[in-house]
Amino acid sequence: MGVVVNLEESADRKGDLGKLATLTADDLRDVNDLIVRAMDSPVALIPQLAGHIVAAGGKRLRPMLTLASARMCGYEGNRHKGLSACVEFIHTATLLHDDVVDESELRRGLASANAVWGNQASVLVGDFLFSRAFELMVADGSLTILEVLSHASKVIAEGEVMQLTTSNDTSTGETAYLEVIRSKTAQLFSAACRIGALIAARPKVEEDALETFGMNLGIAYQLIDDVLDFSAKQAKLGKTVGDDFREGKITLPIILAFRRGGDEERVFWRRTLEDLDQSDGDLDRAIGLLEKHGALEDTVERSRHYGAIARDAMGIFDDSPHKQALVDVIDFCIERAY
Amino acid sequence: MGVVVNLEESADRKGDLGKLATLTADDLRDVNDLIVRAMDSPVALIPQLAGHIVAAGGKRLRPMLTLASARMCGYEGNRHKGLSACVEFIHTATLLHDDVVDESELRRGLASANAVWGNQASVLVGDFLFSRAFELMVADGSLTILEVLSHASKVIAEGEVMQLTTSNDTSTGETAYLEVIRSKTAQLFSAACRIGALIAARPKVEEDALETFGMNLGIAYQLIDDVLDFSAKQAKLGKTVGDDFREGKITLPIILAFRRGGDEERVFWRRTLEDLDQSDGDLDRAIGLLEKHGALEDTVERSRHYGAIARDAMGIFDDSPHKQALVDVIDFCIERAY
Repeated sequence: MGVVVNLEESADRKGDLGKLATLTADDLRDVNDLIVRAMDSPVALIPQLAGHIVAAGGKRLRPMLTLASARMCGYEGNRHKGLSACVEFIHTATLLHDDVVDESELRRGLASANAVWGNQASVLVGDFLFSRAFELMVADGSLTILEVLSHASKVIAEGEVMQLTTSNDTSTGETAYLEVIRSKTAQLFSAACRIGALIAARPKVEEDALETFGMNLGIAYQLIDDVLDFSAKQAKLGKTVGDDFREGKITLPIILAFRRGGDEERVFWRRTLEDLDQSDGDLDRAIGLLEKHGALEDTVERSRHYGAIARDAMGIFDDSPHKQALVDVIDFCIERAY
Repeated sequence: MGVVVNLEESADRKGDLGKLATLTADDLRDVNDLIVRAMDSPVALIPQLAGHIVAAGGKRLRPMLTLASARMCGYEGNRHKGLSACVEFIHTATLLHDDVVDESELRRGLASANAVWGNQASVLVGDFLFSRAFELMVADGSLTILEVLSHASKVIAEGEVMQLTTSNDTSTGETAYLEVIRSKTAQLFSAACRIGALIAARPKVEEDALETFGMNLGIAYQLIDDVLDFSAKQAKLGKTVGDDFREGKITLPIILAFRRGGDEERVFWRRTLEDLDQSDGDLDRAIGLLEKHGALEDTVERSRHYGAIARDAMGIFDDSPHKQALVDVIDFCIERAY
């Protein structure tokens, strides 16, 4: 009894995944079982390494989006579980490859897989998970969903390459940055939601609405992620602060501060982000400049803009607990900034 | 006229891809066009990097296997072209990820992509090509072929991880080694051939025969590749000699020499391959030991064994130019050793 009350209380908190977590809890348990079974292999290092990153867990936000979208659309079968696992595998594979690319040492509060097993194993186990995702999709049997997710995978790779080419380039503008995060992050959110309408065989207009919801939610989510990289709150999430800065990644807070600052500040940004010539105190100075120009605050404002589009896209659906839980994810994404 | 005569002459040479190249030339031209179109992207670095490795070319052996298998099975449509491109994309993606894993500096006689653009871009463009392969398969529309190639991709990743775990371990035996090359190399040869029977809708027995042919051809091919790493002929192929040795990769020549040598030799192998403690002259000594124990020669003998199985698997097909060209590939793979 006590547990039920606690869950409901937490579900009422704004910016909480509680409602979504409660509604998808039973389905998600099956998805987690599926994930553990599907990452098994006679090659012991594969379940070891994959288990490390999957056990670290993360929020399972993307699979929950698929589960809740399908239920909101009235779907009553079981296909949404396998497809949620596919979405999570694609996400996990990109995380493994990202950590190699970023040379990150922490992921989800634990040592990253590449720090423990090396880059080589991370690349290859990422490939394994990616292939397994496609095997599971084939078993599901829908060519339309295979199309959606193979396209999403391609766009994610394009976004990651775009990010490489904008890194260390302070001339990167907001439009180019948006294209990067639309591709590398929001495309998979969008696909995860759209799948819900597809397996429920809902009309095109609902499919499009869920696609728009996911896309804009994903943009809002990534904008806040980029704010968090400069925020004290970040340490609580088990991530190091200033990772993006140290790599010279050009995110929206930087883009805004660079444009709003004077020549002397631009010399600073170029030295630290283009030449990667950084020393003690530079991260603090960067955070100071971001605050001086309201760059973090305004990035959160931009995030609210995309959140509002996501919310309106859901307007065509009848009210239901699943719809409300999905809409609440918007607040969750944005409130993480505080 | 002169050209035609030359091609036919070269087609008569044992151990030459001439016959296969001649028979598949028209189809292969279309495949190459498809490949160039399919690797295009608004993100300029992607066609640049992918073009670098694709233009370096290689033999296009795997797509030629699909093309010739389909034609031998009486297939007269165009699907075999797109599917050949998928096979080549999967192969190219694994090459890109392999080079990151191996830290190779040469590939197909040119600087490897990771040496030019860095590991990060190689990982991500590999992901792009892999995703594009699945997009093309989805466009083809056969769930059976999607199953064959997603399974092959998974097995390749497993084989590569297995190879990582046997690297630097001189206790690796012939069985474990065979499992590695069956997975990392032969599985894709096998899938490439099997697709020919599948799109021609041939009976299961022919599908199985082509699968067996491809699998054993792939094993024979990789065994010779492993011999070539210690052979003077290797330099001609644009690869550096002794790459496997320097990385401590345990291949069949090493496995045989290690087992046939005495204690003092094993100390040498352990120092160089397990501890990677190598200095000038060690590669020469390794080659000397391999020759002393007939390890290279006997690896070629093992290759002949798998080649013979591949040849016999083709016995159920009626004689035809395409069949003959495929059987000739066996000799081509083995004769590369000389």
